[in-house]
Amino acid sequence: MGERDLIRAFERMLGVRGERVVYATGDDAAVVRAGGASVTSVDAIVEGVHFELATHSPGDVGHKALAVALSDLAAMGARPGEAYVVLGAPATFGEPAAVELVESMEALAERSGITIAGGDVTAAPVLILSVTVVGWAGGERDVAYRDGARPGHLVGVTGALGGSTAGLLVLEGLDAELAPAEREALIRRHRRPEPQLRIGAALAGAVVGAMIDVSDGIATDAGHVAERSGVCVEVRLADLPLAPGVEAVARAAGRDPLELAATGGDDYELLLTVSPARREVVESAARAAGTQVTWVGSVVAGAGARLVGIDGEVVELTGYEHP
Amino acid sequence: MGERDLIRAFERMLGVRGERVVYATGDDAAVVRAGGASVTSVDAIVEGVHFELATHSPGDVGHKALAVALSDLAAMGARPGEAYVVLGAPATFGEPAAVELVESMEALAERSGITIAGGDVTAAPVLILSVTVVGWAGGERDVAYRDGARPGHLVGVTGALGGSTAGLLVLEGLDAELAPAEREALIRRHRRPEPQLRIGAALAGAVVGAMIDVSDGIATDAGHVAERSGVCVEVRLADLPLAPGVEAVARAAGRDPLELAATGGDDYELLLTVSPARREVVESAARAAGTQVTWVGSVVAGAGARLVGIDGEVVELTGYEHP
Repeated sequence: MGERDLIRAFERMLGVRGERVVYATGDDAAVVRAGGASVTSVDAIVEGVHFELATHSPGDVGHKALAVALSDLAAMGARPGEAYVVLGAPATFGEPAAVELVESMEALAERSGITIAGGDVTAAPVLILSVTVVGWAGGERDVAYRDGARPGHLVGVTGALGGSTAGLLVLEGLDAELAPAEREALIRRHRRPEPQLRIGAALAGAVVGAMIDVSDGIATDAGHVAERSGVCVEVRLADLPLAPGVEAVARAAGRDPLELAATGGDDYELLLTVSPARREVVESAARAAGTQVTWVGSVVAGAGARLVGIDGEVVELTGYEHP
Repeated sequence: MGERDLIRAFERMLGVRGERVVYATGDDAAVVRAGGASVTSVDAIVEGVHFELATHSPGDVGHKALAVALSDLAAMGARPGEAYVVLGAPATFGEPAAVELVESMEALAERSGITIAGGDVTAAPVLILSVTVVGWAGGERDVAYRDGARPGHLVGVTGALGGSTAGLLVLEGLDAELAPAEREALIRRHRRPEPQLRIGAALAGAVVGAMIDVSDGIATDAGHVAERSGVCVEVRLADLPLAPGVEAVARAAGRDPLELAATGGDDYELLLTVSPARREVVESAARAAGTQVTWVGSVVAGAGARLVGIDGEVVELTGYEHP
């Protein structure tokens, strides 16, 4: 099956959602009714760099590529709009695998209310997916940025941390004392991360200061907020919400569970700062979106991220380098 | 130099053009003031599939990746807006080559009035560039589509054809009788194609029927218009405008120059159909944009592209398969 036939097979699989998309695939470009502000991000994942086909099915890869890109829209608080997908694959990857990959991507698109409105298919020496996502907001002031953290703000994080890295360690063969359901949940967390679109939009509406998705580990991502905002973001390690099973995995790996939670990437939760006066607005927005916010630190004058240990001492962590 | 440092180096090289872009690089996503209709296309080029570093410098590759994507905006008649670039490269590609690649892309962006507003950098086994471009139009009716060809329309093409394929044959070592300037022009045509943005926007304004860019060869692209419009697009081979030097290259290669012009891809001219009443409007729009339109056929009832030879017979060409 040639690339053109594969593209047509994909086109038949993809649905158009909402009234915004005028023309999706089939022309030189997609045409979308626009207004307010558009919010655009692009992310690529490469076999052998960001995932291995030994631990990820084609469906996992498709899901992950779209989820990672959508997580950036969540971090801006944008409403999901359209995705544009480049699929590069060697001939050995095969048509059934490509179809499984796109089906999984389309399932996440449907749940997220996004339309896969265009793309490109090409030969490549390894599997590579590049996903551009476009979200929409009423205007540029309705979006949450990294530069809005101010001294005095509380620092919160949605959901729980460390689950993705713990899941990867289990996938790589680590023998941890886990109940079967816990083990499955950790692996799923790594293979099928969920972009926090609903809470992201709710938090942008609750006028948070700064917001970012936790893709590189909260230690690194707090540093990004600190740098862009010109402040110091202090994070109390002992207050980090650990995903169930992270302690057992850390024990088996001989690592500190809090360090694992602080530096392990790919959780795709949201880190936010907000004026203490808005603490309850944020908490109830989180509840309404089916999740919760844990308060893990505060913004102070200074620079960089500062991780504070149980005894109040500043902790130096070995940085996790996101590929 | 790590990926993060490289991204920052790129950010310093990139300019923001116009009033539309609110936030470019540096946050989770770019934020752009939107309105009317957005027109979005994505294209990827891969080393060993679409180009070889033996015949293309890093600057050529950067230019080509952006030019190919912008050509889709030209075909829709959209005003250029923003580009989002994924650069995947092996460590051996090196930082100076990556900088040369981005400089060349930025030079084309500046000439085209487009802002490179975001991107991603990743390790990859070969050089790969994925470029998403966003253009803007007053509304969905101000865009030219592939499905607007109607029986009775004239078929026109901008500029000249066959130059890119002739340039590739010369690059691959073909010994053709060419003046040095002609040889250089053909090679440049292949390495540095120019997206026809100005004439594309003018033609959409002149209310053409259908429009498409000639990326796969006019024989194939006329077929795309025919299929989407539900008509037959007849192209007279003898009327195709040949780029200077194409005849000499075709002679040296033992090929028919008209066949080379009809099936050779990567010219990135525009193919259009228009009611005969608008013929002069199109011609003067082309002149104003610094190019010309050659009338090469007509739209009739039926299906598919029909290539007509010098004696009026229908010609069957071996299809050129675009990677």
